[in-house]
Amino acid sequence: MNSQAEEHGHHISKQFNAELEDVKNHMMEMGGAVEKQLNDALASVVNADSGLGSRIVKEDDEIDAMELKIDEEASLILARRQPAASDLRLVLAIIKTVRDLERIGDESAKIAKMGIKLSEEREFPEGFVEFKHLGESVTTLVSQALDAFARYDAEAALAVAQGDADVDKEYRSATRSMITYMMEDPRSISRVLNLLWALRALERIGDHAKNIAEHVIYLVKGMDVRHENLDSLAYQIVDAE
Amino acid sequence: MNSQAEEHGHHISKQFNAELEDVKNHMMEMGGAVEKQLNDALASVVNADSGLGSRIVKEDDEIDAMELKIDEEASLILARRQPAASDLRLVLAIIKTVRDLERIGDESAKIAKMGIKLSEEREFPEGFVEFKHLGESVTTLVSQALDAFARYDAEAALAVAQGDADVDKEYRSATRSMITYMMEDPRSISRVLNLLWALRALERIGDHAKNIAEHVIYLVKGMDVRHENLDSLAYQIVDAE
Repeated sequence: MNSQAEEHGHHISKQFNAELEDVKNHMMEMGGAVEKQLNDALASVVNADSGLGSRIVKEDDEIDAMELKIDEEASLILARRQPAASDLRLVLAIIKTVRDLERIGDESAKIAKMGIKLSEEREFPEGFVEFKHLGESVTTLVSQALDAFARYDAEAALAVAQGDADVDKEYRSATRSMITYMMEDPRSISRVLNLLWALRALERIGDHAKNIAEHVIYLVKGMDVRHENLDSLAYQIVDAE
Repeated sequence: MNSQAEEHGHHISKQFNAELEDVKNHMMEMGGAVEKQLNDALASVVNADSGLGSRIVKEDDEIDAMELKIDEEASLILARRQPAASDLRLVLAIIKTVRDLERIGDESAKIAKMGIKLSEEREFPEGFVEFKHLGESVTTLVSQALDAFARYDAEAALAVAQGDADVDKEYRSATRSMITYMMEDPRSISRVLNLLWALRALERIGDHAKNIAEHVIYLVKGMDVRHENLDSLAYQIVDAE
């Protein structure tokens, strides 16, 4: 290769790396926006703030627009740059992760809608403790999954997958409490059902955080760990080092 | 190009087309397996067949394995063949669709679990009519979405997106009936809740059918129509012809 061609190749690869950096940064920005939506949705329920709830429902459109934009950027990189190996894995992991982020935004909007409904009937306080607690666990999980992606940290991602199993346990116990509340006071059924849907949305968000963690492990380790048992997964990740 | 190179190029492109055909066929096979899971899950609830329910839960692992295999095939095509334009869109649409199919399998397994629980308590028949009816609507939607993909038919895909709006309406009305049943007979709460979860799973399956339809429109028309309003979508699809 002559030096001009070399310079040209170097230039292309610098530009390619900049494009990859860009799309990853846009995904992280979307992650930040989704985290904010989730935090606000939790606050709208806990503080019975229907104004905040309505704003979250509206802002879900912006999250949707971010998903489309990043998905298009990533598809363009595939078409123009034809990345291979770890670059290809990064682009595919981004395409999958933005879809999970969009779903977290969706579920947050659902929680906010429940917040608006719940703000109209404050006389029954049962269930808020369970909701607040599960909300905190799930928020932590989402934030850890995004951090693991930012730092390409497969072990931190594995911890997220393990954390989701605890969230599922907590969710089942909260559901049982709700059923007890409904049976004890049938007048509360329709209100407690709203809390049940909000708890279900939180449980889903935990699943999406786990999905993101699996995309990180695929990206870093090059292995697809979806549907794997957690113990064998921990073994594989340590083993692959 | 000399004739040898031409023949070589021709050979490569034939092989590439065969690979694309293969991965699409594997996706359609997975679609068939998922449709069967859904139909069996509905039957396990309606006939209170706990044996069938258990088998569905087990077979969900096979669906998961199909997803991983097809996803890997598609990623390999991206890495080796570096497809462009409509070939790239096909591969990306397949990657996204198998994820929706896997989720439909998951939701079917959840319905089957509810079927196992419900088979233990047959004394309250309320809610089965609503469940059966919604189940039929959703099954049709999934099958139409897969047909639209097989035939690259954007207009049929649009009809699926519109059908999902009807499913959502039907789901909301069924939910209201369940709440009435619970209020009328608080002893039925825990049983009716199981039916509510099963209805929710059906509504989710409708969403995934809609997602698949959107992947078909993206594939055929080259435009991303997620989060679009249905009326403007119909206009664009006709307009783009």
